[in-house]
Amino acid sequence: MTKARKPTLYWEDFAAGTVREFGNKTVDREEVLRFATEFDPQPFHLDDEAAAAHPMFGRLAASGWHTAAMAMRMMCDNYLLDTASLGSPGLDKVQWVKPVYPGDVLHMRVTALESRPMSSRPHIGLVKSRSETFARRPDGSEDLVLVTEGWNMVARRSKPAPRDEAS
Amino acid sequence: MTKARKPTLYWEDFAAGTVREFGNKTVDREEVLRFATEFDPQPFHLDDEAAAAHPMFGRLAASGWHTAAMAMRMMCDNYLLDTASLGSPGLDKVQWVKPVYPGDVLHMRVTALESRPMSSRPHIGLVKSRSETFARRPDGSEDLVLVTEGWNMVARRSKPAPRDEAS
Repeated sequence: MTKARKPTLYWEDFAAGTVREFGNKTVDREEVLRFATEFDPQPFHLDDEAAAAHPMFGRLAASGWHTAAMAMRMMCDNYLLDTASLGSPGLDKVQWVKPVYPGDVLHMRVTALESRPMSSRPHIGLVKSRSETFARRPDGSEDLVLVTEGWNMVARRSKPAPRDEAS
Repeated sequence: MTKARKPTLYWEDFAAGTVREFGNKTVDREEVLRFATEFDPQPFHLDDEAAAAHPMFGRLAASGWHTAAMAMRMMCDNYLLDTASLGSPGLDKVQWVKPVYPGDVLHMRVTALESRPMSSRPHIGLVKSRSETFARRPDGSEDLVLVTEGWNMVARRSKPAPRDEAS
């Protein structure tokens, strides 16, 4: 079992405008097939011929949920496992902008958009972030492939002032 | 590799107001740990003690991305693998309403909200759906745990009329 690290990053470290860039995940064909087999067995995620017949994909493409999960892992490795994170209530947007293919290398930019204490639990802060995932293709070109916008709950480093407690 | 089934459901079968209810997926502790290890290794998805300290979870909870992936699989098994589906450009909403725990049994209701031809490719239709995933808890109670709203691309059964082709 992973031993929890002591957090070094708290809500205060995600002020609006904060940008983090990171990630270097090669999309592996076997992983694409394994994820699709378990969670999204649509033919264009499993079969080269079916994918070739898809009007936009053209060849075997990763499930959008797999791309999102790979992005989650990059966020964990870059900062979330060092953050007093309490999870997410949800997302306002998920855009699968372009297909992701085996052999692509993914990296990310995460931008904090808004930040406020949680009204019902003022010792927790909310951060709204935009995540952008980019695919570097084997030919050296690069595409934005996934955009999400959503909220995270993060413990506050400092004890809230009494008037915050009452809000 | 899964052989693609010949579709029986096309865009015309997802008119606004169409409701599908299905699913019977038991959330398995080993699967929760395996998904979290690979994609979302935050302590409350991997470790009973860390999860017990989480202010809302109270005990080991599935990654929200795992819940979404399990929902995707239920949709595939119920209708998507029989549908002339072409994937999704994105979602307008993902709400992780309540935690999902090992031992819960998930089922779903998917409601078609809107339907229109794709302006750039009139032989493809767009369907906006709301998916609701419910967890039946071991004590017999039931909670809404996940809501998504988003778009799917589905091939049309009938050839579009010439005026649609021109739009």
